[in-house]
Amino acid sequence: MMTVNETHDPALRSWVASAQAPGTDFPIQNLPLAIVRRRGRGEPWRGGVAIGDQIVDLAALHRAHPWEGLAAEALAAAAQPKLNALMALGPAHWSALRRALSHALREGSALRATVEPCLLPQADAEYDLPAHIGDYTDFYTSVHHATNIGKLFRPDNPLLPNYKWVPIGYHGRCSSIGVSPQAFRRPRGQIKVPDAAAPVLAPSRRLDIELEMGVFVGPGNPLGEPIPIERAEDHVFGVVLLNDWSARDIQAWEYQPLGPFLAKNFATTISPWVVTWEALAPYRVPFERPADDPPPLPYLDGGANRRAGGVDIHLSVELRTAAMAACGMAAHTVATTNLRYTYWTVAQMVAHHTVGGCNLQPGDLLGTGTLSGPEPHQAAALIELTQGGKQPLELPSGERRTFLEDGDEVILRGWCQAPGAARIGFGTCIGTVLPALAG
Amino acid sequence: MMTVNETHDPALRSWVASAQAPGTDFPIQNLPLAIVRRRGRGEPWRGGVAIGDQIVDLAALHRAHPWEGLAAEALAAAAQPKLNALMALGPAHWSALRRALSHALREGSALRATVEPCLLPQADAEYDLPAHIGDYTDFYTSVHHATNIGKLFRPDNPLLPNYKWVPIGYHGRCSSIGVSPQAFRRPRGQIKVPDAAAPVLAPSRRLDIELEMGVFVGPGNPLGEPIPIERAEDHVFGVVLLNDWSARDIQAWEYQPLGPFLAKNFATTISPWVVTWEALAPYRVPFERPADDPPPLPYLDGGANRRAGGVDIHLSVELRTAAMAACGMAAHTVATTNLRYTYWTVAQMVAHHTVGGCNLQPGDLLGTGTLSGPEPHQAAALIELTQGGKQPLELPSGERRTFLEDGDEVILRGWCQAPGAARIGFGTCIGTVLPALAG
Repeated sequence: MMTVNETHDPALRSWVASAQAPGTDFPIQNLPLAIVRRRGRGEPWRGGVAIGDQIVDLAALHRAHPWEGLAAEALAAAAQPKLNALMALGPAHWSALRRALSHALREGSALRATVEPCLLPQADAEYDLPAHIGDYTDFYTSVHHATNIGKLFRPDNPLLPNYKWVPIGYHGRCSSIGVSPQAFRRPRGQIKVPDAAAPVLAPSRRLDIELEMGVFVGPGNPLGEPIPIERAEDHVFGVVLLNDWSARDIQAWEYQPLGPFLAKNFATTISPWVVTWEALAPYRVPFERPADDPPPLPYLDGGANRRAGGVDIHLSVELRTAAMAACGMAAHTVATTNLRYTYWTVAQMVAHHTVGGCNLQPGDLLGTGTLSGPEPHQAAALIELTQGGKQPLELPSGERRTFLEDGDEVILRGWCQAPGAARIGFGTCIGTVLPALAG
Repeated sequence: MMTVNETHDPALRSWVASAQAPGTDFPIQNLPLAIVRRRGRGEPWRGGVAIGDQIVDLAALHRAHPWEGLAAEALAAAAQPKLNALMALGPAHWSALRRALSHALREGSALRATVEPCLLPQADAEYDLPAHIGDYTDFYTSVHHATNIGKLFRPDNPLLPNYKWVPIGYHGRCSSIGVSPQAFRRPRGQIKVPDAAAPVLAPSRRLDIELEMGVFVGPGNPLGEPIPIERAEDHVFGVVLLNDWSARDIQAWEYQPLGPFLAKNFATTISPWVVTWEALAPYRVPFERPADDPPPLPYLDGGANRRAGGVDIHLSVELRTAAMAACGMAAHTVATTNLRYTYWTVAQMVAHHTVGGCNLQPGDLLGTGTLSGPEPHQAAALIELTQGGKQPLELPSGERRTFLEDGDEVILRGWCQAPGAARIGFGTCIGTVLPALAG
């Protein structure tokens, strides 16, 4: 498990002045990675690190050759057009790179003259997916979401008997994962209203959001060799925001018996900045389940997981309709929640995924599932917030929403705060609904 | 839709004598592609075409530069370490390569002296996966399998109401797909017997086979732009045998509500030779559903699909236990079936997969689902053949089997025969069960 070290010291200051700006997501204690380039110049993609409102271009820094050893090896990998090679290296390399960057970006660093020419303003940048995602798995780790949505799909049987034993997950679609900001068409699909004799092909009328986080896998495991929970976090590179857009009407008709398919695979949006697992060390929290719940099976249990398996990440969902955007209104927060409300930890997801021998690979993405919390305002999907579309949300524009309308923009945010630690953030994960294709 | 042409002429003979051997899978009318190299020499992987008991090394042939135009472009793509570039080119290129190879391999060909040095005996070859598989989707197209297995999992409700409307499918795991021959460990997983209070982690005791076919996607579609059924087959490169190994006890406990996960993702085996869609043209058959079933929705319907949407591919499952192998006994056929028994065609799978905007990419793999036919001996999984493990199979060795035991070898075969056409085959898809890891 990554521990707090000098790179997390809240007193650290960077010679990049904007890293000290109040409320910045990217102080020197964060140092998330993305795949970046200058917008509109056809440049090659390469890794970058956020600092304040700037980006350290890691390909340029690699050419400047500032370090030796593990940090240099990690920098070479991070200069590539995808971060898979860096993800494959593992925690010792990631830590060396973080420490080297932290030193180079501190006030008074002797490397300032080397690093400063490698800065690229975030305002001039565009982003690609951080990794080639070989496989994408979506879990279902919020018992609150599972219960809320179970009530809507199966009123007599909301939480299935396996839920408190099995970290439920399923395989998702890789090809349609896009980086924020992503605009996507409202999907058409088979929809059957309850009293109709037959389904029709029509644009979804119940298009929803799902606020999740996405975990990027670091080093993988060979086929047939499970990752024990004690070592699971050595295989976790970092975390992004993830919006698992869902067409509830398509889902309701198609999902039995093999799970969601077209209801989910038309688009999935992730935020560009991968906040490393090490950066999250100051925000780890104990992870205990309710006393009257069954203890996890041994392969899902461990002292470290109980002591600090959770991560305290504040999350929010904001909505801005086309009308709100047209008159310059700010987005409206419709939900706030936290990663710590999950029933299963990231380490448990990794241990479960591999217990049967399934091989993970660097760059694989693990979604947490919709991160609804215990309170009604902590529901991380519209179907929960509006009780299945029966109680519309009131927006400051006077509009109402049950599900998403064309032109709606959804903004996910995440941030961490803790006593004795800096505030760090995840940037934004933005998606916009385009009209369906004409039928 | 690919039509029958001179390359399918059953009278064609090759100067490779073994292409005329009785019962060969690889006469000159077949010409399937694989990724190959000489075994044990650390050579680079490259494309190859089977002819009799030989392989035309397409990298060597590319260096010999025998053609111009589309055939030359296709050959350059096929000489790569994966077939994705060839798959991306589309039917005109594939046809040009097939025609050029057919001419070059015919008796009397002027190119014999160019091609003969490029031959590599299959006996000396090893195989890799034919493509980088970006996404793997598994369908559920046999109504017989869906009904048989539905009776076991949901006796009161075997065939769900969506089955005859929706080509049910779900996303599978790419990382654990291997090429035949694949040996894999019996998975461990959570198993809960009906009268137990809690599940246990244990090796699967109900390890099963699923005989399927796998369809490799050719050119993809952009996100948000569906492929209409009339053009669906232009996006189909070719077909392999596929064994979707399944742990039924893990599946029964984990699969609700999001579908199979660890029950399937420990291994999936495909045959190395991709039989092209064009090679299958002589074996196309009409595709009509029972008169009292609902007609497909328009996006899944079309004249060409009804006239010849099916493919008549004979399929078999053979089993050889370790004891049978030790005393030199041949494998025992436990099931024979046919691709034509599906309820949905390959074109319908493609049209449905993309109707909501999901993008397919070259090299994506679409499994048909377990290809059980209407008769009991046509059941393509042990759970069906043994009625949920209640009626063991009797083997010629005197052994009995409900589910797979350690050391069991499973061999899938497929072949096509039709009046006025040659017999072509798929080779074999072989997998062997290794013991589970110690607990």
